[in-house]
Formats: sequence, C-alpha cells, structure tokens
Amino acid sequence: MEAKTVKVRVPGTSANLGAGFDTLGIACSCYNELELSLHRDEYLDIELQGEGAKDIPTDNRNIVWRSITRVLKKAGVEQEFRGAKLHMTNGIPLSRGLGSSAAAIVGGIKAANEALGAPLSTQELLELATEIEGHPDNIAPALLGGMTISTVKNGHPETFRFIPKLHFKMVVAIPDFYLPTKAAREVLPDKVDRRDAISNIGNAAMLVAALLKGSKKFIYNAFDDRLHQPYRERLIPGMSDVFKEARTAGAMGAFLSGAGPCIIAFTDNSEEKVGTSMISAFADHGVKAEYRIFSLDRDGAVVIE
Amino acid sequence: MEAKTVKVRVPGTSANLGAGFDTLGIACSCYNELELSLHRDEYLDIELQGEGAKDIPTDNRNIVWRSITRVLKKAGVEQEFRGAKLHMTNGIPLSRGLGSSAAAIVGGIKAANEALGAPLSTQELLELATEIEGHPDNIAPALLGGMTISTVKNGHPETFRFIPKLHFKMVVAIPDFYLPTKAAREVLPDKVDRRDAISNIGNAAMLVAALLKGSKKFIYNAFDDRLHQPYRERLIPGMSDVFKEARTAGAMGAFLSGAGPCIIAFTDNSEEKVGTSMISAFADHGVKAEYRIFSLDRDGAVVIE
Repeated sequence: MEAKTVKVRVPGTSANLGAGFDTLGIACSCYNELELSLHRDEYLDIELQGEGAKDIPTDNRNIVWRSITRVLKKAGVEQEFRGAKLHMTNGIPLSRGLGSSAAAIVGGIKAANEALGAPLSTQELLELATEIEGHPDNIAPALLGGMTISTVKNGHPETFRFIPKLHFKMVVAIPDFYLPTKAAREVLPDKVDRRDAISNIGNAAMLVAALLKGSKKFIYNAFDDRLHQPYRERLIPGMSDVFKEARTAGAMGAFLSGAGPCIIAFTDNSEEKVGTSMISAFADHGVKAEYRIFSLDRDGAVVIE
Repeated sequence: MEAKTVKVRVPGTSANLGAGFDTLGIACSCYNELELSLHRDEYLDIELQGEGAKDIPTDNRNIVWRSITRVLKKAGVEQEFRGAKLHMTNGIPLSRGLGSSAAAIVGGIKAANEALGAPLSTQELLELATEIEGHPDNIAPALLGGMTISTVKNGHPETFRFIPKLHFKMVVAIPDFYLPTKAAREVLPDKVDRRDAISNIGNAAMLVAALLKGSKKFIYNAFDDRLHQPYRERLIPGMSDVFKEARTAGAMGAFLSGAGPCIIAFTDNSEEKVGTSMISAFADHGVKAEYRIFSLDRDGAVVIE
C-alpha cells in the first residue's frame, strides 16, 4: 500500500453557545494546517509553527500523531506505516476554549484517512475522534463545519449538522491566560436545580430554531445559560460584564466559548464596537485581552493540497 | 359597545414531548368548541356536553368564564358585560395530559376577544392565558396550533411556533384514570443530575432540528427524557413498556403527554398496530386504556362561525 502526502485544514470551534451546554458547536474561520507524509520507518519528524509552537510536544506524545496512529490501527496498516513527517501551522489559540485539542485530533485522523485513500467513513472518523477527545461537542464542528447538535447514545456520537439561516459574525474576546478544560469542569456541581435545567432546555431549543429558521428576534434571550457559565465566572473575571457590554454595543448575545476563557459575541453589525467594548469590560476587571472577528466556517476538515 | 355571538374551536395539546420538558408543545386534532354570547345582565348560563360534562362547574367558578372575565377587564368593559351564555362541546379528555385546562382558558379568551372585535393582539392573548394557566407549554399550541417552543423571560412568555417538516400521526393511548398535574409534579425532585440535564438539552435540540428539517433518522433517540418521565412512572404503571412496545410496533418514539397519564407515539405507518401494542402493554400492567389517532392541528384557536 502506498500513502499520499496530504495537507489538511481544520477550523477552530466553539462549544456550548451558552444554553446548549455539552451539545451545540460551531466552526470558526481560524485554522490549523497540517501536512502529513506517512513513513515505513519508525521515525517521527514534527515541525510546528504558530500558536503554542513552544508548548506542544514533538515526540510520540503529540496528540496529532497519536490520532494518526489510531487511524492506521483501524485501517490495519499500523505495522506498515510506523513513522511520519508532520508539518503543522497552528492558527487556533491553545487552551482558550476554541477547540485546539479537537482540531489536533480531527487534523490527525482526517490527514491519515486521506493519506490512506479514505478507508474510513465520515461517521467512523466522528466516532474515532470522539473516542479520543472524550466528547463530540468540538469534534463534530471541526470535522463537519457549520453548526452542530451532538448527543451521545450508548457511547456513540450522533451529530446533526446545519448551516444557520441567520447572518452573523463572531467577535471573539481572547484573554491572555490559559484555562484548562479540566479546571473549568471541576467548578461545576454534579446536581443542578431542575428549574435551571428547564431554562437551558428551552433556550437551547429556541436557539436551534432561531438559527435554523433565521429568526433574529428569538435569538436575544436564547444564549442565556444557568448550568455552567455562572459557576465559571470566578475563573473568568468580568465575564458577565463582557456579556453585557457586548449586547450594549449591538451584539445579539454573548457566551463563554467552550469552557472559556474566550468569550464570543454574535453580531450582524459594528463588530469593532462590540470587540472594543468587550476588551474594555475585561480591562475593567484587570484582564488583558484582544479581540478577533471570525466568520462561520462551512467546510470543517478539508484537504487543501 | 355591541358584542357579537361567536363560536370558537380550540385544539387539545401535548406538552414536553419527552426531552423538551416544560418547553415543547404540539396541537392535536381533537377539539373543544365554545359558543359565547356576552350579556349586559349579571347572569351566567353555561351548557356543557362531551368530555367531563358532569365534573365541570357551571357557575362563576367555571374556568372558561373566569378567562372571559379577564379579557373583559383588560378591554375595560367588565362593567358593560356582566354575564354570558356559554355553550361548550368538549372533545378533549380531562386531566389526561391533553391540555384540557389550556383549551378552556384559550377558548374563553379567544371567544371573548373575538366577541369584542379583537381588541387584544395574539401576543397579549398568549400573555394573558399564560398568566391564568401559570406556564405557556400547552397554552401556546392551543392558541397558535402547530408545534411550539416556549420559554418565559422575566415573567413574559416567548413562543416560537412552527410546522414540522416530518409527516407523522400521533397515536394516543388514553388510560382510564385521571392524573392531576399537581400530583404528577410533586414526584419530581428539585435537584437533578447535571448529566441528565445535559442529556435533555441535547435531545430537545435534536428533536427541534429533526422536526424543523424533516430528518427522520435523527428523531429516534431524541424523545428520550431523564428529567420527568422516570419519576412519573410510578404514577403511570407500565409507562416504559408502552414506550418500548410502541417502537417495536413501528413508532419513531413515544413519550408521556404532558404530566400523563396519556402516552403519545409518533408514527408514519401502522397506526393501528402501534395503538393496539400500547393498549396491550398497558393491560399487562393492569391498566385499562383505549387509543385514538390524532393528526397535527395547524390552526390553533379559530373562529368557526
């Protein structure tokens, strides 16, 4: 069997969107690129540039490489291809809630699958990547693009993917500190108020309907979350004020991206005004941040060369 | 001011649809009809036939009449019209989870509003009826028809109404006992597992997406609920088995209608087989039941004469 050299591009992603806790996901126009050449020799050559280049291991602990080996194993060629040359250019900030880990995993499995002539189906890639990451919220949009609703049934991820009918940009406020997902999860209580659960069910359902049908008037309250954001505020100083200022500046709503610390605002006007308001609200709480403007990514993980 | 004699029709409704606890609603093709003539004299003449005719009070405790008086008050004519002649023909079974109380309220306010020349807007009727009922889950589909996503923001109901793109019939198994909503709510715990809340968020979002887009393959798991049905099973013997048998007989899924005891199955084939399987599963648990087949009602509360 011969393996092609392939280059893939994978988008950053945001999970939760407020009320859609552990369910909703969206792909953003910021990308990691990955070029992969599989070798027959047990030799790993990983080159990195861009976000987190200094922090990411370049030996066999590398998550992209570990994801590649899972595809090789599943395709039954792990003895045939024992090494690789990997060149990564990372545009997705690390540990900020923009799905850098999901992008690494999806990049690895997509590239490996393409290099082998696509022995695995998209659903198989989704299952495999979810197994590695532990949950599908960021995996699904990284792989499929657009927006995703993901659930897990008997250990198997199920993903409904769609393109929202509403036009918007995402203004992303990126604080200059890391927040590991594990730490952001530890602050969550195991038991929640039934009324809070009901509030999130209603808002998540409303958000999906508003996005699918393009009904802007129903989106304003639909991001409101009571199950994770309130508990995470102490890890992200100024969170509520950033939400508030984003809306005052014209955003439809704002939410924590994944487990944070990034905060994303949806807006269809005055992106700059929304961005500077968010940065300034963070600054009032002693948090240095910058903002970027993302569009929806519709493609997910794709071969670009 | 003159008041017209009007006749309105209001559909029965089902709330929750499994995962969409206290949020989703659907209007069904079973109806109450109500003819209203407002009087200037303080005299109430209520005639009743059909479901619950013997149990419903015909004096000023009557919920239809009480709802009418709320509209009269809001329109500022409560001194002008102090009595009424009401003729009701009720097709919606009482205290079975089919929205008979919402239908009574919506029937009253819709008829009164029409009799007065429609001084109140649909949103005002929704707000008023929700105020009387306490929550919008059944009110919204009874008033608007179709399917509804309802939330409450600062005491105000917000409802997204849509017609699902999926074709289905509702097979309704109606046990021969009453279950007051109050009793069915008392068995629910105030605190729930975070993972159960997440499961419902995912399923409710999936259900809305599947119905809006007509994606049958995503609907099979989307009714699954962990927040109310499991606790209500002890009030509705055989519930899980009825769900299971409905699916085995070909249904897409089944759920408790509102707080029960009715169970509804969605199916696009073999309605009779699904119905008899549900009845037989109930019988295995010593519950006598009958089944009826409903379609989606698209119209909500309408003037028919």
